[in-house]
Amino acid sequence: MGFRPSGYMLKVREVHPLVHHITNYVTVNDCANVCICAGGSPIMSDSAYEVEEMVASADALVLNIGTINERTLESMKRAGKAAGKVGKPIILDPVGVGATKYRTNVVEGLISSLHPSIIKSNMGEMSTIVGCKGMVRGVDSVSSCKDLADRMLAFAKENRCVLVSTGPTDYVTDGRTFFELSNGVPMLENVSGTGCSVTTMIGVYAGACGPSAESAVAAVSAFNIAAEDAIGHCAGPGTFKPALLDSLYAMKPETIDEKVRFKAF
Amino acid sequence: MGFRPSGYMLKVREVHPLVHHITNYVTVNDCANVCICAGGSPIMSDSAYEVEEMVASADALVLNIGTINERTLESMKRAGKAAGKVGKPIILDPVGVGATKYRTNVVEGLISSLHPSIIKSNMGEMSTIVGCKGMVRGVDSVSSCKDLADRMLAFAKENRCVLVSTGPTDYVTDGRTFFELSNGVPMLENVSGTGCSVTTMIGVYAGACGPSAESAVAAVSAFNIAAEDAIGHCAGPGTFKPALLDSLYAMKPETIDEKVRFKAF
Amino acid sequence: MGFRPSGYMLKVREVHPLVHHITNYVTVNDCANVCICAGGSPIMSDSAYEVEEMVASADALVLNIGTINERTLESMKRAGKAAGKVGKPIILDPVGVGATKYRTNVVEGLISSLHPSIIKSNMGEMSTIVGCKGMVRGVDSVSSCKDLADRMLAFAKENRCVLVSTGPTDYVTDGRTFFELSNGVPMLENVSGTGCSVTTMIGVYAGACGPSAESAVAAVSAFNIAAEDAIGHCAGPGTFKPALLDSLYAMKPETIDEKVRFKAF
Repeated sequence: MGFRPSGYMLKVREVHPLVHHITNYVTVNDCANVCICAGGSPIMSDSAYEVEEMVASADALVLNIGTINERTLESMKRAGKAAGKVGKPIILDPVGVGATKYRTNVVEGLISSLHPSIIKSNMGEMSTIVGCKGMVRGVDSVSSCKDLADRMLAFAKENRCVLVSTGPTDYVTDGRTFFELSNGVPMLENVSGTGCSVTTMIGVYAGACGPSAESAVAAVSAFNIAAEDAIGHCAGPGTFKPALLDSLYAMKPETIDEKVRFKAF
Repeated sequence: MGFRPSGYMLKVREVHPLVHHITNYVTVNDCANVCICAGGSPIMSDSAYEVEEMVASADALVLNIGTINERTLESMKRAGKAAGKVGKPIILDPVGVGATKYRTNVVEGLISSLHPSIIKSNMGEMSTIVGCKGMVRGVDSVSSCKDLADRMLAFAKENRCVLVSTGPTDYVTDGRTFFELSNGVPMLENVSGTGCSVTTMIGVYAGACGPSAESAVAAVSAFNIAAEDAIGHCAGPGTFKPALLDSLYAMKPETIDEKVRFKAF
Repeated sequence: MGFRPSGYMLKVREVHPLVHHITNYVTVNDCANVCICAGGSPIMSDSAYEVEEMVASADALVLNIGTINERTLESMKRAGKAAGKVGKPIILDPVGVGATKYRTNVVEGLISSLHPSIIKSNMGEMSTIVGCKGMVRGVDSVSSCKDLADRMLAFAKENRCVLVSTGPTDYVTDGRTFFELSNGVPMLENVSGTGCSVTTMIGVYAGACGPSAESAVAAVSAFNIAAEDAIGHCAGPGTFKPALLDSLYAMKPETIDEKVRFKAF
C-alpha cells in the first residue's frame, strides 16, 4: 500500500476545515473540542432559519441523530439539500437506528433524500442499515451478522458512498476496497461521545481531503492512535477524555504513519 | 443492619441496566458518563415521536426538569405513561421546583399523573414538595424546615414512593425506614451537575435492583464515596469531575461496604 | 490608575450573584462551571413559560445566541424585557453575528429592543456590530478594521453600553475610557467555549458589581489570569479546561492585582 495517513493529516492542518454539525445535545461539546484538536473549526448552528446559509461557508456537514427531534430534523434536511447542491461532503451518524420506528424512518429518509457521502455508525447500527440482522441495545450495539463485510461492500457500491463501522475492529469501504482497522483501546467504550467524536473526525478529514475511504481511514486511525496514547496519561474514563484531546492535538504526522494498523482487501 | 450496599453494586454490574433519561442540556453529558461509570448504559432520546417505544427497552426512566420546556414535558409525560404501564421505575428530579409557578405546576402534574417511584432533589426542593417552608435560590436551595424528616416519611408513605433529599447529609425514606447518609465532600457543591448525577446513579441502581430505599441508599453512597476518593486526586473543581468518574468506575464492592456511613431509623 | 480588580473579585465572592443564562447547548456546561468557580451561581432555564419569573430572582442576565432558535429567541426577548424593567444588567454575546442574515437580524433586534448593558464578542463579531468591515469565519473571526477602537468608543457612547471585544488583546470601553487588556494565553483558542465563558465571567461580575467597564475589565482579566496559571498545570487543550476551572476557583484577590496587565486611554 502506498497509502500514508500523514498526508491527510497534513492537509487537514493546512486547510483548517470548517465543519458544520447538526448534532445531539449529549456529546456536542466533545464534538466541538475534537474538531478543534483535530485541526478543524466547528459550527453548531441548528436553526432551520439559517442552516442553508451557514452550511455554504462550511467544508463539510455532519448530521448526527443522537437526540433528533422534528425541529432539528427539518434543519438537517435543509442543510443537507444545500450542501448537496454544491457538492459538499455530508457525513451521517445514524445513532440508534433500529431502536425505534421513528429513528429508522428518519435515517431512511435522510439517506434517500440527501445521499450522504459517508455513513458512520457502530456495528449494530451498520447491520441495520445494510440489512443484516443486528442486535441494538440502546446506543450500544452488537452485531451478529456474518456477512457484514459483503453487505457493506454492496451497499457502498450501490449508493456510491463510504461506509464506516466502528467497534473493536473498524471497517471502512467505498464499495471497492475494504479496510479493517485495528487501532484503539477498550477504554473508548467507557466514555460517552467517542462514537460521535469519530464522526466529527471523519467530517474534519472529509472537509479537508474529500469524502474518500482513505480520508475516513486516516480520520478513524488518528482518533484511535490518540486514544492509545491517552491511555498512558489517564487513571480512568474521566481523565481519559481530556487526555485523548491532548494526544489528538499533539499528534505528529510521522506518528500516525508509524502506529497505524490496517489491512486493505 | 444486615444491609450491605455491595450487593446492589454487584447486581448493577451484572445487569448493566439501560437508563432512559429525559433531562436538561446543561449536565446531560455528565449524566451519560456517570451512568456508564456506575455500570449502566444511557439512552438520551427526548422526542415525543419515539420515547414510548424507546423506554420499552429501558430498565428505568429518569426525568430531570432542569431545562424543561413544552416539547420535552410532552415527551416526559409520554415516556412516563409507557414506563408506568409496564411497571418500570420512574425517577423524578424536580430541579428548581418552587422557583417559578411553571416549574411547580410541572412537578405537581408529573407527580400526580406518573406516580414516580423515586423523587430525588436537594433539600430546598424537597421542602417545597413535602410542604415545608423552604428557601429556594436558583438551583441551590437551603431548607429551613424543622420537621422535614416527618413530612418526608408521611409523603413517601402516602404516595408509596421513595424520597431522596441531598445535601451535606442525605436523607432517604420509603415511608417506613428513614436513612441518614453522611458520606460525601463539600467540593460536590462547586461542580455543576453533581445533583443530576446522583439522580442518574439512583436510576442506574433502581434499573438493576428495583426502586427501593435500599437501592437509593446504595446509589447515593457509591457516588459520595467516589467523591471522597476523588478529592485525593484533584486540584480543584475542574479536575475533581474527571477524577470522580475515575473513582466511580474503579470502585470495588468491598470499598462501599467499608466506607459507607449511614444511620437507619 | 487607582483601579484595582481585586475589589471587584471580593465583591463577587461576597454577593455570590445568581446569573440567569439563556445560552447555547454546546458550551452551556462550561458556562455553568465557570460561573460557579468565579463565585456566582448559574440558572439555565430557557422556557418562555417561566423566564420572566426566573430572571426576577437573578442578579444578571446573559444572552448567548450560539445555537439560537425561534423558541429560545422568544425566551430571550421575554427575559430581557423583564430584566430591563427592573434595571438588571443584560449581557449579550452575539455569537456568529454577520455569518448569516438570520443571526444578524436576531442581534439587531435584541440590541434595539433590549438595550443590553454589555455586548461581548470576538473581534470579528465586534467589527460587524460597530460597522467595521470584518471577516467572519464560522465562530472564529478575524477583523481587518483599522478604526475598531474609535468605532467601539462611538457605539458605546451612543448606546450607553459597555463593549468588550476579545482576542489576543481584549478591548473594553464604556464610551469614555478605552481599556486594552493583554493577559491570556494562545491555548484559549484551542478550547471550545472559552469565549462563552468570558461572557459568563462578565455576567457574574456585572451581577455583583454592576455593568461598568471596570467590572468587565476585572472579569476578563480574572479569566485570562486563570488561563495563564492553568497553562502550567496541563498537557494540552483537554487538560487545560479542567485546570482553568481549578485556577479560577483558587485565585486570590492579590493575584489579580499583581498579574493584571492593561492600559487605559
